[in-house]
Amino acid sequence: MEAEDPRADGAATRRIRLDIAYDGGGFRGWTKQPGLRTVQGELESALSMIFSRFGEAPGLTVAGRTDAGVHALGQVAHLDLTVAQLDSLARPRGGVPSLDPADAAASLARRINGILGLDSDVHVSGSRLAPEGFDARFSAVWRRYEYRVADASGPRNPLERNRTLWYPAELDVARMSLAAGSLLGLHDWAAYCKPREGATTIRTLQDFGWNRGTDGVLVASVRADAFCHSMVRALVGATIAVGEGKLEVSRLVVLRDRLVRTSEFKVAPAKGLTLMEVGYPQAEELGARATVTRARRTVETAPPLTPGREMV
Amino acid sequence: MEAEDPRADGAATRRIRLDIAYDGGGFRGWTKQPGLRTVQGELESALSMIFSRFGEAPGLTVAGRTDAGVHALGQVAHLDLTVAQLDSLARPRGGVPSLDPADAAASLARRINGILGLDSDVHVSGSRLAPEGFDARFSAVWRRYEYRVADASGPRNPLERNRTLWYPAELDVARMSLAAGSLLGLHDWAAYCKPREGATTIRTLQDFGWNRGTDGVLVASVRADAFCHSMVRALVGATIAVGEGKLEVSRLVVLRDRLVRTSEFKVAPAKGLTLMEVGYPQAEELGARATVTRARRTVETAPPLTPGREMV
Repeated sequence: MEAEDPRADGAATRRIRLDIAYDGGGFRGWTKQPGLRTVQGELESALSMIFSRFGEAPGLTVAGRTDAGVHALGQVAHLDLTVAQLDSLARPRGGVPSLDPADAAASLARRINGILGLDSDVHVSGSRLAPEGFDARFSAVWRRYEYRVADASGPRNPLERNRTLWYPAELDVARMSLAAGSLLGLHDWAAYCKPREGATTIRTLQDFGWNRGTDGVLVASVRADAFCHSMVRALVGATIAVGEGKLEVSRLVVLRDRLVRTSEFKVAPAKGLTLMEVGYPQAEELGARATVTRARRTVETAPPLTPGREMV
Repeated sequence: MEAEDPRADGAATRRIRLDIAYDGGGFRGWTKQPGLRTVQGELESALSMIFSRFGEAPGLTVAGRTDAGVHALGQVAHLDLTVAQLDSLARPRGGVPSLDPADAAASLARRINGILGLDSDVHVSGSRLAPEGFDARFSAVWRRYEYRVADASGPRNPLERNRTLWYPAELDVARMSLAAGSLLGLHDWAAYCKPREGATTIRTLQDFGWNRGTDGVLVASVRADAFCHSMVRALVGATIAVGEGKLEVSRLVVLRDRLVRTSEFKVAPAKGLTLMEVGYPQAEELGARATVTRARRTVETAPPLTPGREMV
């Protein structure tokens, strides 16, 4: 189980929210793994340098535990700092040390980025004091992903090859959008998920559509309360099969409602996928939301919470 | 001197125009060099595979010989094929071999891309029969480049780090545009060029401005009849110095008119620079234009034409 309070000694802590962007191509996903380069591993290693004199470094809790090769522009994580750790971030400003906690929290992004370097493939776009009750994972009410496909009818931009699937056939975007729209709602997505023991596959698909941008690239936008493992890439792969004319529009709902995985479409590769945004309620509702989510998931999943729940 | 007709045996040839895009990060520039990976080298090696049974492979003549690390989305090159080479590209269509030269020319891009592979960092976006008198280099009437800078005031996107300079200070885009606009016109750009023996530094800067996009990234658009070596990157570096407040807006014209290189600004790194478009006259004016350009350059530069004239 995840500890409710990482500082079991009872020392007062302040929670910091980090907004994070990364190119997933060089990472074996978000989650720390021994001997592998991961986003969490890189960031926690920077944190351990910044807080080296305090012993154990603060750990990160994340909204979307992205798989190997998946990118993020709007990833969100949190960490808890003791008052002493937070104070250590305060920098002299005009000669006078600032002890304003908001300034100290905001400086953490700069400190991390300074260690990562200017041209790093992971970048902390902001850090700030989190509102009371905020939990990057359990407060989240939705996640939105985008998937980029350059098909045979459009130009291919080598500068975007690391985040765009190049597909060798022409795709019918109108059919793909029809199929995407037919799937919306609260359903059991077992047919579109890699099974994970003890993990629910019931999710609400809130929004799913395809559009061709002015540059000719097809972009899917997919939003749900949360996603089970490989769900976004299965949804993308299924609608691509429809766009190529290999499946009927109506087939995707039929396959979903059988609740078993199928070989009628392929899960799309990770490289085209980017976590764009995570949605949170207003500050005043945060505490209630985290409690509800945590309780529901605990009931659903029994012991212990498996990692990778929001992996996509 | 470049040969007027690469087929000295007098065999009839057809000229093919190629439109090319590449991520310059993995290349030592456009121009073929022994033992180094270059865009021309990769493309000519694909051509030598396609035309292996015809002996010597056709060579490429290019509009903009980009430096190491510089990208292109709208590069243009030409090659000359014998009738037999062109015919060899004709593919059976519905069982009947097509000998339509236009179809054969259009298929060359697919053949080259098939050899380069789906995820290549260079991609031929199109191939077609060139109009009479067309020369990718000597017919060109302008080249347009863009330069991307993410400054301290905007977000940084790790997915675009390979084509965006990350600049650690805040830049004043209004001052940069003022400075850019002050430089327009026909001038001697010796102060903004790396000297090359026998190469003129007189150019017409037709258009130069900076804008901040909706994503917060600063983008310069720079257009000239042609550029001397490192000119775009010097213009970008000079206006960045103005944007940071290190140089006065009026200083750039003063420095230009001294005709000697200066250490008051730095040449910007290659990674932010992309060749976007090359302009050509209407088909009926092509022959006249190439003759004029070739004659002018020969007079200006004496023997022999040095490579890298349009290097930037």
